[in-house]
Amino acid sequence: MRQKHHPFDPLSPDEITKIANIVRELAPNDQEIFRVITLAEPPKKEMVEYLALEHTALIPLVKPGRIAKVHVYIAKEFHEMLVDVDNGHIISDKVLHGRHSHVDSAHMKRVETACLQDSRIQKEIQSLRLPEGATVIVEPWTYATDGMNDVNTRITMCWLYMRLSNNPDANYYAYPLDVVAEVSDSLDVTKIYRLPSGANEQMNNDKKQFDHNKIHTSSEYHPDLTHGRRTTTRPLHVSQPEGPSFKVDGNCITWEKWTMRVGFNYREGMTLHDIRYDGRSLFYRLSLSEMFVPYGDPRCPYPRKGAFDVGNDGAGVNANNLKVGCNCLGHIKHFDGWHVTSSGFPLKLPNVICCHEVDDGILWKHTNFRTGNAVVTRSRLLVLQTIITVSNYEYVFIFYFGQDASIHYEVRATGILSTAPIDIGDQVPWGTVVAPGVLAPYHQHLFCLRIDPALDGHKNSLMVEESQPMPFPHVSNPFGIGYTTTFEVIGGESGMDLDHQKNRVFKIINESRLNSTTGTPVGFKLLPCYSQMLLAHPSSYHSKRSEFGAHAVWVTRYSDDELYAAGTHTMQSLGGEGIASWIKKRQGNGKDRSVRNEDIVLWHTFGSTHNPRIEDWPVMPCEKMIVGLKPVNFFDGNPGLDVLISKQEKD
Amino acid sequence: MRQKHHPFDPLSPDEITKIANIVRELAPNDQEIFRVITLAEPPKKEMVEYLALEHTALIPLVKPGRIAKVHVYIAKEFHEMLVDVDNGHIISDKVLHGRHSHVDSAHMKRVETACLQDSRIQKEIQSLRLPEGATVIVEPWTYATDGMNDVNTRITMCWLYMRLSNNPDANYYAYPLDVVAEVSDSLDVTKIYRLPSGANEQMNNDKKQFDHNKIHTSSEYHPDLTHGRRTTTRPLHVSQPEGPSFKVDGNCITWEKWTMRVGFNYREGMTLHDIRYDGRSLFYRLSLSEMFVPYGDPRCPYPRKGAFDVGNDGAGVNANNLKVGCNCLGHIKHFDGWHVTSSGFPLKLPNVICCHEVDDGILWKHTNFRTGNAVVTRSRLLVLQTIITVSNYEYVFIFYFGQDASIHYEVRATGILSTAPIDIGDQVPWGTVVAPGVLAPYHQHLFCLRIDPALDGHKNSLMVEESQPMPFPHVSNPFGIGYTTTFEVIGGESGMDLDHQKNRVFKIINESRLNSTTGTPVGFKLLPCYSQMLLAHPSSYHSKRSEFGAHAVWVTRYSDDELYAAGTHTMQSLGGEGIASWIKKRQGNGKDRSVRNEDIVLWHTFGSTHNPRIEDWPVMPCEKMIVGLKPVNFFDGNPGLDVLISKQEKD
Repeated sequence: MRQKHHPFDPLSPDEITKIANIVRELAPNDQEIFRVITLAEPPKKEMVEYLALEHTALIPLVKPGRIAKVHVYIAKEFHEMLVDVDNGHIISDKVLHGRHSHVDSAHMKRVETACLQDSRIQKEIQSLRLPEGATVIVEPWTYATDGMNDVNTRITMCWLYMRLSNNPDANYYAYPLDVVAEVSDSLDVTKIYRLPSGANEQMNNDKKQFDHNKIHTSSEYHPDLTHGRRTTTRPLHVSQPEGPSFKVDGNCITWEKWTMRVGFNYREGMTLHDIRYDGRSLFYRLSLSEMFVPYGDPRCPYPRKGAFDVGNDGAGVNANNLKVGCNCLGHIKHFDGWHVTSSGFPLKLPNVICCHEVDDGILWKHTNFRTGNAVVTRSRLLVLQTIITVSNYEYVFIFYFGQDASIHYEVRATGILSTAPIDIGDQVPWGTVVAPGVLAPYHQHLFCLRIDPALDGHKNSLMVEESQPMPFPHVSNPFGIGYTTTFEVIGGESGMDLDHQKNRVFKIINESRLNSTTGTPVGFKLLPCYSQMLLAHPSSYHSKRSEFGAHAVWVTRYSDDELYAAGTHTMQSLGGEGIASWIKKRQGNGKDRSVRNEDIVLWHTFGSTHNPRIEDWPVMPCEKMIVGLKPVNFFDGNPGLDVLISKQEKD
Repeated sequence: MRQKHHPFDPLSPDEITKIANIVRELAPNDQEIFRVITLAEPPKKEMVEYLALEHTALIPLVKPGRIAKVHVYIAKEFHEMLVDVDNGHIISDKVLHGRHSHVDSAHMKRVETACLQDSRIQKEIQSLRLPEGATVIVEPWTYATDGMNDVNTRITMCWLYMRLSNNPDANYYAYPLDVVAEVSDSLDVTKIYRLPSGANEQMNNDKKQFDHNKIHTSSEYHPDLTHGRRTTTRPLHVSQPEGPSFKVDGNCITWEKWTMRVGFNYREGMTLHDIRYDGRSLFYRLSLSEMFVPYGDPRCPYPRKGAFDVGNDGAGVNANNLKVGCNCLGHIKHFDGWHVTSSGFPLKLPNVICCHEVDDGILWKHTNFRTGNAVVTRSRLLVLQTIITVSNYEYVFIFYFGQDASIHYEVRATGILSTAPIDIGDQVPWGTVVAPGVLAPYHQHLFCLRIDPALDGHKNSLMVEESQPMPFPHVSNPFGIGYTTTFEVIGGESGMDLDHQKNRVFKIINESRLNSTTGTPVGFKLLPCYSQMLLAHPSSYHSKRSEFGAHAVWVTRYSDDELYAAGTHTMQSLGGEGIASWIKKRQGNGKDRSVRNEDIVLWHTFGSTHNPRIEDWPVMPCEKMIVGLKPVNFFDGNPGLDVLISKQEKD
């Protein structure tokens, strides 16, 4: 089995089965123990050696071993194991007391059922006097730590909604009810209460009935429930008669001068590995490390709405099947993902990544005004896309590779706003009323892109450059128009902020490789997405749990076990386990680590402060956030200079 | 003639001819007097009445008169006239002493010839001992005021370059020579000197020879001069079998729910007028008001490199014919522009604007996780594109209209870097060495987008909103996670800065129209392009001449004569005529004007601090800058909700 897999390949179904069979023996009487069987990527030290040999076309002598990371519940205890795939040996088996696995959708279903079956909930629902034909929907949410109720066991918040139509695709977020329940790990309804309805209430203990004036017809999005679709958009077809420009061999993609390997896991979803351009190493790994969606409504229990959609929910297990609906045009190559069922069988996640090309307008153009001759090249992009659904919201995650050796990472937020009830006529300063009785509370989406560079090797540095006016008056700046760049190579692990007013640029450089023409270190610069950082107070649980939200750019020394900016176990985490804590801990114990000419990792936090507009309702047009990585004096010239000249195809 | 033109239509060739014939009579002995015959857009007061009637389907009773603005040189005096197109009456005729018309390419050609024919220049060139077969190219530049040489007459800076190949499309910017000349309006070479070659020199009076070690082969971009083009990019075709989704009637475009009128003039190039969505008025006029490209090299004479590519060069007269080369795909409608020859004949500028559609991925998507049903719509954009060539550089200017009622304005910078000589082995802190002996100096590109809103009418306001954490500790924010928005409606004309850390949002609102659901004023928000502002010292001529470069957002009260953020006449301007001066003057004389519930104009300054990378050489991959305008509680919900659901076309 070993020889056929590349070390970065996700575990195959056969490997998952093999591991499951081994681990299942530890719990012969329990069939439903599995949460995760995923590749534990090889230690970087081994991979660096392996890749060096692989890319010199020598047969690698030492292939890193295949190791599986396994999450299982045995006798209600949460185990994390490492298992050697090749020889079946259990390398380690840790019980993680007080920690929880990522969201268990089967458990969530049971929570819903338990909640609805609870007689007190039924009584509470009856007291609402809902319209005839209404169906109550329980929307279970993981519990965001707020300091009031932080026990070791899992708690699920059950937010209640109402579906008025018989159509199961009717938008129940249009009818948030003011009843909420908490359900324990053992499926007991432990608390039931009413939600606040006005700005000054903490909790609402009036047993109010549902206000029938809230019933409205403008909140549907499903085509079966809406009318008057526009018919003016005429078809636009993309065809690639000679096929795509990319080649796929297993998980390795070759396109134009790029090569890279696609990975996929239950948590981060799509990951990219060993990214090279024209044979030169650029990035060891690119991934969405974490994301956090805290809500800004201060009233209890809303501070419990703070979702780690990667760490808690899983960008992999929630990935859409991209063959359902038209998610892209042209020639498409889909990749499947593999997960595990609770019984230990391989679970196919079909078509979770798509690979295709798009035209992006002009790549470069010049007209010689003396001859009138125009030379135009068109820009083709390679697109690697994955889309996740986390309850109400959708996120589209896209890597774009350009012929000019640029990489862009785009996030599109779409789907349906999370809603809360509000009395008709009321307003609150932390939300927008998007329909009668429907409050869309303010919230933030904070993403952390993990960029593990390997620019011409693994010893890289981070340089912060600013453009500054030259002193004036000054003899060397007689007209007051001169400006130069100042730069600092960052010495130690730290978090930093953006400053567009100084044109602050973060460049990853290899100080041991100078560009032979410019005389400066080869590098790539980050084109950041300018965003507000986390608004929650530094002493709040939101802040403590999502430390990456405090700064836009972080640099750390590489560690095999530091992939997740908010820590490894985010479910009901108490904080203090994220990127700031890693750095602080090392500084505190005198192990402050240099990040100059070392194996470093860059982390970019970006996102949106999403104060909903009514135009985001009932389904939100994509909001785009874009991050770029561009070569700076890395190559010998425009990497896309050799792209074919485009002629007008017809007149 | 009058009835067939819409008041926003550019002057027709017939109208240009008519005006020329009238004006020509003023200078019967001079055949080459014309610089500009363009539409003087009707006073807004008249247009507001006209449009109100037009859109209520009543026949407009009073159609604003067609007025031409004319720039002519009569007896060497620069005249600006207004002429009534209908009755041929010359309404006004002003002589603009000490001012200059926009760049005259015929004059520039004469300058080139005069420079090359000058015996002292020839002697200087001989002293360079250029390689055999070299052709010296004179690149004339308008003179940016630096305080040293500010006379009333036109001065042209002549930068010398060398073309080594016989091919006229060889890249002569690869060989900047160190000779520079100044040529007077009357075509005399008034000064010849050498350029500095090191960081500390002000001017170089050594008569150095050309260093033959600078000869290299890596700076060509033209396909006839480059080899090894990649052949891996396979064809990608866009077809629209049922034609485009837009309709064009004259200059009026109807697409999806949008209507707008396209305008074009010699200066701003493409302009857009009377932009409406679903019948509701959004913007009266959108245009690129000005752009400024100051160079950061402090050494004399480089402070004279500061280009107003709109005000001096003209985004209209420099617009590319978009049928030459493949500038877009799919079904394309081209618009011609009309200008005037120096002799007064209509000059067609063919295909200067293209109108087409592109697919932009997903517009919105939601999967109901309970039913598994995915609903996806694709985003179609209407693209209005124009591309200009200003000597070495190209700019692509694109308006995108979305089905979600968003507008985006994209600028792509491409073309060839402006270069200066540098000794081999030297470095300077204000430029990048991109090839042997070739310095690409640091510079900025600052654009000013003029946004003339008409949200549900012409009385609008500007609101500045910020997202702020709620006080903590505080009884209403017990968990420290609450945040709200603060807002200020701007009272007076002013310039403001961006602040992403506060999520500062600039919203144009109509305070007299409340959204019936959200209860807040209808509005559109600016999605700014975060950019460094002008680096030149406030007391420098660069700053004084490009006042718009001091702040990212400006708001003014509408005036018919305030279209150009750096003033009407930018050629060798001395400053003090731009947007800050307008405001200051009104504040100084007590005529400080309210911009609340008034007819206001928003101006957004953005751009790039372009410290060249070698990857920008020899031709630069497009650098994108994007600005957006999005509805905020303007509509009743997602304006793209009714877009047809997309199905996968094939598996």
